[in-house]
Amino acid sequence: MSTLRVELLNTGSELLLGNVQDAHLSWFGKELFPLGLRIGRQGTVPDGSPIRDALLEAFPRTDILIVTGGLGPTTDDITRETVAQILSRRMVHHPETMERIKERLSRRGIPLQDRMDRQAMAPEGAIVIPNENGTAPGLHIPATEGISWATPHIFLLPGPPRELQPMARAYLLPFLKDLAAGGDQHECRIYKVVGMGESMLEAKIGMELTKRGDLEVGYCARPNEVDFRLIGPKEILDEVEPSVLAAVGDHLVSDENESMEEIVVHLLGQKGATLATAESCTGGLLANRLTNVPGASAVFLEGFVTYSNASKTDLLGVPPDLIATHGAVSEEVVRAMAEGALRKSGATFALATTGIAGPDGGIPEKPVGTVWLALARDGCETEVWKETRPSDRLTFKQVVTQSALDRLRRTLVSM
Amino acid sequence: MSTLRVELLNTGSELLLGNVQDAHLSWFGKELFPLGLRIGRQGTVPDGSPIRDALLEAFPRTDILIVTGGLGPTTDDITRETVAQILSRRMVHHPETMERIKERLSRRGIPLQDRMDRQAMAPEGAIVIPNENGTAPGLHIPATEGISWATPHIFLLPGPPRELQPMARAYLLPFLKDLAAGGDQHECRIYKVVGMGESMLEAKIGMELTKRGDLEVGYCARPNEVDFRLIGPKEILDEVEPSVLAAVGDHLVSDENESMEEIVVHLLGQKGATLATAESCTGGLLANRLTNVPGASAVFLEGFVTYSNASKTDLLGVPPDLIATHGAVSEEVVRAMAEGALRKSGATFALATTGIAGPDGGIPEKPVGTVWLALARDGCETEVWKETRPSDRLTFKQVVTQSALDRLRRTLVSM
Repeated sequence: MSTLRVELLNTGSELLLGNVQDAHLSWFGKELFPLGLRIGRQGTVPDGSPIRDALLEAFPRTDILIVTGGLGPTTDDITRETVAQILSRRMVHHPETMERIKERLSRRGIPLQDRMDRQAMAPEGAIVIPNENGTAPGLHIPATEGISWATPHIFLLPGPPRELQPMARAYLLPFLKDLAAGGDQHECRIYKVVGMGESMLEAKIGMELTKRGDLEVGYCARPNEVDFRLIGPKEILDEVEPSVLAAVGDHLVSDENESMEEIVVHLLGQKGATLATAESCTGGLLANRLTNVPGASAVFLEGFVTYSNASKTDLLGVPPDLIATHGAVSEEVVRAMAEGALRKSGATFALATTGIAGPDGGIPEKPVGTVWLALARDGCETEVWKETRPSDRLTFKQVVTQSALDRLRRTLVSM
Repeated sequence: MSTLRVELLNTGSELLLGNVQDAHLSWFGKELFPLGLRIGRQGTVPDGSPIRDALLEAFPRTDILIVTGGLGPTTDDITRETVAQILSRRMVHHPETMERIKERLSRRGIPLQDRMDRQAMAPEGAIVIPNENGTAPGLHIPATEGISWATPHIFLLPGPPRELQPMARAYLLPFLKDLAAGGDQHECRIYKVVGMGESMLEAKIGMELTKRGDLEVGYCARPNEVDFRLIGPKEILDEVEPSVLAAVGDHLVSDENESMEEIVVHLLGQKGATLATAESCTGGLLANRLTNVPGASAVFLEGFVTYSNASKTDLLGVPPDLIATHGAVSEEVVRAMAEGALRKSGATFALATTGIAGPDGGIPEKPVGTVWLALARDGCETEVWKETRPSDRLTFKQVVTQSALDRLRRTLVSM
């Protein structure tokens, strides 16, 4: 890996108030690693004077400092001015940037406001990074000669990910790639494991690898999954891989850093199979996860979100007396849902879910968190199983869809 | 607000590698504000020795330090030990905690691993916070007498949100509520505005309020929405509210901190109306967002994810020649989708989407980002409109569903 020290500083009171969730750290983390760079530290500070303190702390200990947010037209946006002040540079006006801003606004029929000209100002010596998806340009501020304590490369980028990401792809990432070239290339391999806890993983293989001393070994527990992470030179990763695979066996979901939905969509494609979904308690999350994967349309035919009992009958042909006798959350109903979706769609597979997400709706025999799942397959017996996953509504939906996708994945792998 | 200085420190290499997205900052931000507390700063450090540096920096400048992660059973989990070392406390064994761990494992049929006893160790003087959803307990470490530079209250909590959040609710938040009691109570009001940019908002009302000097004014631009944020004493917020409402007019989506899907589900309930969805390019996200809201089942009847052309015909009755003539992404097809969903479901409203999410599938007349939307309403003319939202797949789905929900919201408000 490169020895360049990289830090990310997010600015914005909305992040600390919890009104917005940061997306920059995970995005940059993933994008920088293949360039041989790792983010050593990340921080979040509110708008206003704390930005100054955080910059002064970060400057002497970093080679590359990426600052996000605070470049907008409003009074709480002061990142540009704060950096200029610390570096003792005056602000200069960029007429070309102003032209771009005017053009963008007129195309969208938005009147020019007085304060927007602030966005065409930059500290002297800064390189402007054009923004194709918003008004505020980004800035690359190379070190001032003679100020030895300042970060050699400061990048100021706008807060919204849809503006920041294209700018980073066009300018920042290529620049950093050149800067980091020549360092040791490490790889990061993540083995996604379902059905085996992290202690078990460590006992079976992790401890042995940690003792070698030439690999970085990490574990990350997620809902219904452990990510087992190895970082090191390619040769060493190749050398230990067979023992990792032997230790995790069929608990391995993927040895690439693919999400479960990516794995399933790719496997369906490889096997020439198609899928339909019939969701009650997961309310469309299964379809949504699948359709987040580019190319899903080739394998995902259709999805039914049958939230009401009537819709289970109308759309999937679940007999009303089945629901009346066994309840909507039952083995019989989930089987009929999956088989109905298979029949209606003509797909190779159909997944169905019906359960009690909560917070209300639980009864003693079927508490909140109870869920029935089914996997129907053209020409085969339908698999039906029950799980109990009491948790908040969003985690419940995530865990249940994970379970459904994993069952389909196992079937596809063995096809 | 309380003058107590709060910091959040997230540990875990997976956060900096981008394999996991932090959820703690936004959660704590939202939970702490009503107690009169604001997070002044947040940081992320990798597993290992950087935790020590970050703790030493944070200790002298905070009153309450919340540290997440690094409490698991594996070798990369060293938060407990690092804190003990800095504070010169020995680690002591908690037999009760060990009993809880053993019980939990045996209930789930998992064998006890050697290293799991680490999770029953804690720095001397620490108060154990039981974990109902995992093995690692949390720890509350009050200051050591005589060490004046150390944070008065350190809280160590496990990384997974489904473990951390219930523990924080049961122990940490009530504790902090008592600690912060008596400070000035400020309120945070967020006005969600759709269809008006942040510069316009500032010109119309924001600048005037900023000049008063007794309010904190903030703006946060999101896909297709600006959050206009005011923080201050209740009396002052009440005083200025009429001028805010007058300035934003019908661009106001909500003056409570509710998500668009919450607003729509609540409005449907108030108006006694029901909804069905017919999604092509949004692939179930519309249904998924709606069913994230507790109580959605009372108003959301069913959803169709008609990804293939055949499913548009089979499930929604879209005539095949309509698709052949105009293409699946067209005014005619989206209208037929919405009206088909309305007819099939018997709902009051049906929303439909069909578009090109990308990255592939665009043609010159219909580039990536093109989307047609429709809102059908029982007994009324169907509204159909087109938008162009070129961006990555996930943002596209988010922006399009936001637009669809906002159209329904406006109709509901005027009912």
